[in-house]
Amino acid sequence: MQQRFIAEGHLIDSGILTNILNLIVEENEDYNILRFDIGKTNAEPSRLEIELICDTAERLSTVSKKLINLGCYEVGPPAAVWKRAEKDAWVPADFYSTTNHRTEVWNGSAWQAVVDQRMDAVVVREAGGLFCRKLRDIRAGDEILCGGEAVHVYPPQRDREGGAFAFMDNEVSSERSVESVVSQLAESFREIRNRGSKTIVVAGPVVIHTGGAAALAELIREGWVQGLLAGNALAVHDAESVFYGTSLGVDLKTGKPTHEGHKNHMRAINRINGHGGLRQAVESGDLGRGVMYETVQAEIPFCLAGSIRDDGPLPDTQMDLIKAQGEYAEIAKGADLVLMLSSMLHAIGTGNMLPSYVKTVCVDINPAVVTKLADRGSSQAIGVVSDVGLFLKALARELRG
Amino acid sequence: MQQRFIAEGHLIDSGILTNILNLIVEENEDYNILRFDIGKTNAEPSRLEIELICDTAERLSTVSKKLINLGCYEVGPPAAVWKRAEKDAWVPADFYSTTNHRTEVWNGSAWQAVVDQRMDAVVVREAGGLFCRKLRDIRAGDEILCGGEAVHVYPPQRDREGGAFAFMDNEVSSERSVESVVSQLAESFREIRNRGSKTIVVAGPVVIHTGGAAALAELIREGWVQGLLAGNALAVHDAESVFYGTSLGVDLKTGKPTHEGHKNHMRAINRINGHGGLRQAVESGDLGRGVMYETVQAEIPFCLAGSIRDDGPLPDTQMDLIKAQGEYAEIAKGADLVLMLSSMLHAIGTGNMLPSYVKTVCVDINPAVVTKLADRGSSQAIGVVSDVGLFLKALARELRG
Amino acid sequence: MQQRFIAEGHLIDSGILTNILNLIVEENEDYNILRFDIGKTNAEPSRLEIELICDTAERLSTVSKKLINLGCYEVGPPAAVWKRAEKDAWVPADFYSTTNHRTEVWNGSAWQAVVDQRMDAVVVREAGGLFCRKLRDIRAGDEILCGGEAVHVYPPQRDREGGAFAFMDNEVSSERSVESVVSQLAESFREIRNRGSKTIVVAGPVVIHTGGAAALAELIREGWVQGLLAGNALAVHDAESVFYGTSLGVDLKTGKPTHEGHKNHMRAINRINGHGGLRQAVESGDLGRGVMYETVQAEIPFCLAGSIRDDGPLPDTQMDLIKAQGEYAEIAKGADLVLMLSSMLHAIGTGNMLPSYVKTVCVDINPAVVTKLADRGSSQAIGVVSDVGLFLKALARELRG
Amino acid sequence: MQQRFIAEGHLIDSGILTNILNLIVEENEDYNILRFDIGKTNAEPSRLEIELICDTAERLSTVSKKLINLGCYEVGPPAAVWKRAEKDAWVPADFYSTTNHRTEVWNGSAWQAVVDQRMDAVVVREAGGLFCRKLRDIRAGDEILCGGEAVHVYPPQRDREGGAFAFMDNEVSSERSVESVVSQLAESFREIRNRGSKTIVVAGPVVIHTGGAAALAELIREGWVQGLLAGNALAVHDAESVFYGTSLGVDLKTGKPTHEGHKNHMRAINRINGHGGLRQAVESGDLGRGVMYETVQAEIPFCLAGSIRDDGPLPDTQMDLIKAQGEYAEIAKGADLVLMLSSMLHAIGTGNMLPSYVKTVCVDINPAVVTKLADRGSSQAIGVVSDVGLFLKALARELRG
Repeated sequence: MQQRFIAEGHLIDSGILTNILNLIVEENEDYNILRFDIGKTNAEPSRLEIELICDTAERLSTVSKKLINLGCYEVGPPAAVWKRAEKDAWVPADFYSTTNHRTEVWNGSAWQAVVDQRMDAVVVREAGGLFCRKLRDIRAGDEILCGGEAVHVYPPQRDREGGAFAFMDNEVSSERSVESVVSQLAESFREIRNRGSKTIVVAGPVVIHTGGAAALAELIREGWVQGLLAGNALAVHDAESVFYGTSLGVDLKTGKPTHEGHKNHMRAINRINGHGGLRQAVESGDLGRGVMYETVQAEIPFCLAGSIRDDGPLPDTQMDLIKAQGEYAEIAKGADLVLMLSSMLHAIGTGNMLPSYVKTVCVDINPAVVTKLADRGSSQAIGVVSDVGLFLKALARELRG
Repeated sequence: MQQRFIAEGHLIDSGILTNILNLIVEENEDYNILRFDIGKTNAEPSRLEIELICDTAERLSTVSKKLINLGCYEVGPPAAVWKRAEKDAWVPADFYSTTNHRTEVWNGSAWQAVVDQRMDAVVVREAGGLFCRKLRDIRAGDEILCGGEAVHVYPPQRDREGGAFAFMDNEVSSERSVESVVSQLAESFREIRNRGSKTIVVAGPVVIHTGGAAALAELIREGWVQGLLAGNALAVHDAESVFYGTSLGVDLKTGKPTHEGHKNHMRAINRINGHGGLRQAVESGDLGRGVMYETVQAEIPFCLAGSIRDDGPLPDTQMDLIKAQGEYAEIAKGADLVLMLSSMLHAIGTGNMLPSYVKTVCVDINPAVVTKLADRGSSQAIGVVSDVGLFLKALARELRG
Repeated sequence: MQQRFIAEGHLIDSGILTNILNLIVEENEDYNILRFDIGKTNAEPSRLEIELICDTAERLSTVSKKLINLGCYEVGPPAAVWKRAEKDAWVPADFYSTTNHRTEVWNGSAWQAVVDQRMDAVVVREAGGLFCRKLRDIRAGDEILCGGEAVHVYPPQRDREGGAFAFMDNEVSSERSVESVVSQLAESFREIRNRGSKTIVVAGPVVIHTGGAAALAELIREGWVQGLLAGNALAVHDAESVFYGTSLGVDLKTGKPTHEGHKNHMRAINRINGHGGLRQAVESGDLGRGVMYETVQAEIPFCLAGSIRDDGPLPDTQMDLIKAQGEYAEIAKGADLVLMLSSMLHAIGTGNMLPSYVKTVCVDINPAVVTKLADRGSSQAIGVVSDVGLFLKALARELRG
Repeated sequence: MQQRFIAEGHLIDSGILTNILNLIVEENEDYNILRFDIGKTNAEPSRLEIELICDTAERLSTVSKKLINLGCYEVGPPAAVWKRAEKDAWVPADFYSTTNHRTEVWNGSAWQAVVDQRMDAVVVREAGGLFCRKLRDIRAGDEILCGGEAVHVYPPQRDREGGAFAFMDNEVSSERSVESVVSQLAESFREIRNRGSKTIVVAGPVVIHTGGAAALAELIREGWVQGLLAGNALAVHDAESVFYGTSLGVDLKTGKPTHEGHKNHMRAINRINGHGGLRQAVESGDLGRGVMYETVQAEIPFCLAGSIRDDGPLPDTQMDLIKAQGEYAEIAKGADLVLMLSSMLHAIGTGNMLPSYVKTVCVDINPAVVTKLADRGSSQAIGVVSDVGLFLKALARELRG
């Protein structure tokens, strides 16, 4: 049995052609290349027409689905299969689970784009169009995309022209100078602010511990940041550092643990509790500088997502994680650049919500964090292994002029 | 101005005497040793009577508090200071923030033990006694312990007699043989099961990825474990491995990523959703082995705490983190041994709830995890840097024979 | 100006076509694809005929050299350029510096293979053929290959048929089960021993510290290993463990540091010194088991390369590093499999000497080691992030049964 | 049987008293504290008179040796035992193996200091005094110190007064701000230069890769550094970066790997070879800036120690490791501060040669490096986990201003 597929684009330099042929070979199936029009110059895309040959209809269906995920579409794609969910949060077993790449579905007459692209979602057909939706938000009766025969996926193609991040591969190494990353990142910040688009920062408390708070606060004050995603600890240690000059009890000036300093974060929480929350603490004048102060003053949206290890938490921390995921997604929506600073948990959480075409830079002193982020599907993330405090200072210096 | 203090116990070999004198010196204050009865033989405790000398009452009060946290008590301790909380979750600024060490408060006539000991809590006086309570659970009108003058703290003393874990220091190294740890740990498991006490396991999904699921399932089935603390991912990948033979899409037998395998965890969630939850999936016979199967069958309590990065989540995952912290604390209560397996987030979360006298062993391939756990206050944790899959297999083998 | 090139082989699935086109695009040069015969079935190789177009002869020469390194050869390749070295260890500035891939040079009438392939060497033409030689071994008057126009390089092609290691990608992760690696590795050991070929082990002292000595000794005794490359420390701590039961002073049974144990390695060195060396210590019966004992008994060649941090060293340690590199290369010569165990220094040193078609497996608890090995050119190395002591035991168990 | 010991100094806050009592308890022996004069004020040292009680003479001797290593001395110390070495590099089995702490030996009438203190050495008595000597340098007939009964060891005592480094504990954490370390380190550099003493730098090639070369070159040019200890790779990549703008083939300005860049280090070696060495390359004007240029110009001593993984090596690299260890020791002699930058191998090598009272700061992005350094006996080393390129720039900035 056989099935024809077409793939188009910069198939060669994006490695897609390689992936297609490898897939078929690894599946122990056969193929014929019917036609391959390679772009003869830099500017032209290539076009592959290939025939997949399998022994059984079942195998043909299995391998076809995989080819489709690589960006192939069937010639004369069949109409997409839509089935109803029988229960809330439960869909037919052959549901199509999304990637984070741009996706189109053949609606019988044309390729229709899916809205709200994100990974690990379900595609729902509604009056308004096709939407990525989380499994838990499915309601009985929703129309669910099944199989993968009528789906066209667009993995990010290698940018031939270069552009801001063309230079960066997503290799992870502690043996690189970060100077060039800092200057290219500053360039991106400027571009994005100039065209009125969004940069989002995801930050862990290590930003405070390593002395990067003033630099991050400056970025926010100067309008480089349009949203802040973090956890309870970032805000707690930020407040601790403003109130008591310590972070996790360590004096930020001397680097020396202070006696009773380990109680400072609880004192900070209590003090914010007294005000009723971070916003009120800022308005009362008690919290007069720092990352959260600037965030509140700049009126940029933020979400502090709760976790099992939180002390307090602050009144501002969202401990209902269903809601927290919703708020994160809302703030991240439409971002052109996401800068992730030393927080594996929140970085992976945010990465889960981002389409793969959003520029993502992840700074951490631990190379494993970036590897993990990529393993969890955010393979677009560019890793920078460095000291986050010094990195933020260098970035602020670069943006200053 | 001066104040007399007494400290008793194995002051020298526990390093307490050192800490006391260092503290005073670093505070730039003066002291006189009025009397020091050193235990003349191994068996006798020591007793230190020391006079702290400061210039001002304020300094005297400041340094006194610190001495008290080191285990000193004032001679003729003043009655404890109790103040009312004016608002919910807000206590007087000089509230006493607890450590995770055993604590007593002078009630005017005797030293009274505090119940539910944990770190970063507030001490509340009620009809039934003195209780550690989380700041967020304080209600207006509660009586709160303030200052630290009437508090006696007992840091864990070095065990002179040895005992199961006496041999282990809490050094963290990837350059040690784990054989002896495995056999001593098995010894502890046996002791604890024999006397009907509790061992709790905290586990991350790496247990599944590294092939340790069968071994952990065996431990549960054989009755070595009395509670399981984890997150959504452990159960998701456990179900994925049972249903599809993969973990995060990687075939557990061949170690090879399977095509479309990255969708398996979503398929697993959907399948559990269809049943309504893990327990129902077990009862229906669909989920017929693995870590969660054995947990359900053994009827041991478990809690899956939600997080910002969760897919799904499973119906069983507690996404209200206030409730999740409560359930964790309930399950951990009374444990004699806590074994933490490759999950920094849940390990720190659990560590926050444990008194310092609970034996805590933390196994991770990353040495930084154990360091971080100790930095967050769980300094009693013994770190084992190893491959968690191989470690669990070795432990199961040891317990078997 | 233009130049025609031909590339042949499994160009697509090996990613070579991608690399060729990317290179030209990144060099800002132009190309025409004159002909591209894609293998229409799995079995057929592909053939690319491409014309590189540059503005200047200089650019043409520059980019041509790069294409050649990717496996292209010029159509009608020019005779190779050979120049004489003017001084010892000094060659003409345009010398051809080798990769670790199989290499052929156009000798005017045919493609002639280069002997003793290794990276970072110079190609010398002598009566007997073409040889890779280290720069330092060049003598004034030697004929040196210059430029790269007449060179054909063969990067390892992806194995379509599978075979022992086909399954393993060279991803590095601490989140994988090592079971399948162990069984496949055992398979390779068996294959290699059956056909009378060579397996070489590179081992650091962590093998001893983590309790893997008995397992490695067993592998050697049972004939699985045909050469041992290590440093002074492996032998010192091996002897220390045999003589005193400790490794770096830590008791291997209890995991407890022993008093004065840190002196044991010096005592071990002194004791071996008294015999005159390891071989004599074995013959005298004093050193009666362990890794070095088995190595001596099995009469397999070994080299202990000296380093700046060596204590002692043992009489057997080669402190002249020029000689040590020579001995290493001699022992590694002809190996089909190299197993590297927890020694970044010796692993990179050995990797430098190996052609890229030698199977190389690197086991370390630190993921950075494997990354570094690949960064230094040994990109064929398969990384296994695990506890080396437990890993060796599992491997020995697998080979036993 | 019993033996009296005396220990003097700040026994309590240095933890020495704790260690003494723990030792005896762990040895399962008994003691009587005959007298303990605790320093009653900050300024006074303490004095312990203690009686060790054992069942046999053998046990008494064993435990006595251990007590002596903790800084105790026997009351009425016996004359030291001196025995002749029978062969070169072979000493009596009960030889005294040195620590890196300041050491005195009872010569019958007084405590005599040992010269050239270093760890893992043998004490030799000669006409000129008592010397630490490496085992390999012992000649038949040398008089060797045996046993430990007449030895007084002085572990570094905690500095009560503070001073430049008093603030730094040797904790290793990537979660600290390095600002305070930078400013304190700069302070130490100034102090040391002002009093005409020596600062030595140990540097790995990561200094070049991470863009720290200009800053290190500046430190050398401005006279802050009095000796440089490194390996072949530092000089190779330094020359590569000066000649070709790359380090390991990566463009230092753009962070992008350059085509053929991986050959640049071989080209750099060849170019230096043409000159005959680094000094000649500087004198010819070909090598006109960088770390090695400044080192040659400043006429400060340097040693490049060879290793098994070296390419080339450069003519300046010392491949005879016996000689390299000698040159290292000579350069390190008399240093007051040693700054170790991203080179575990050379850091441990240097640490082996340093007395424990030399200030040692080790900067590395990998926390395991500092842990390992301490495990190998250099427990005085202060670890800084940071990005070494950014760290050096911050240090140069601090010293400039």
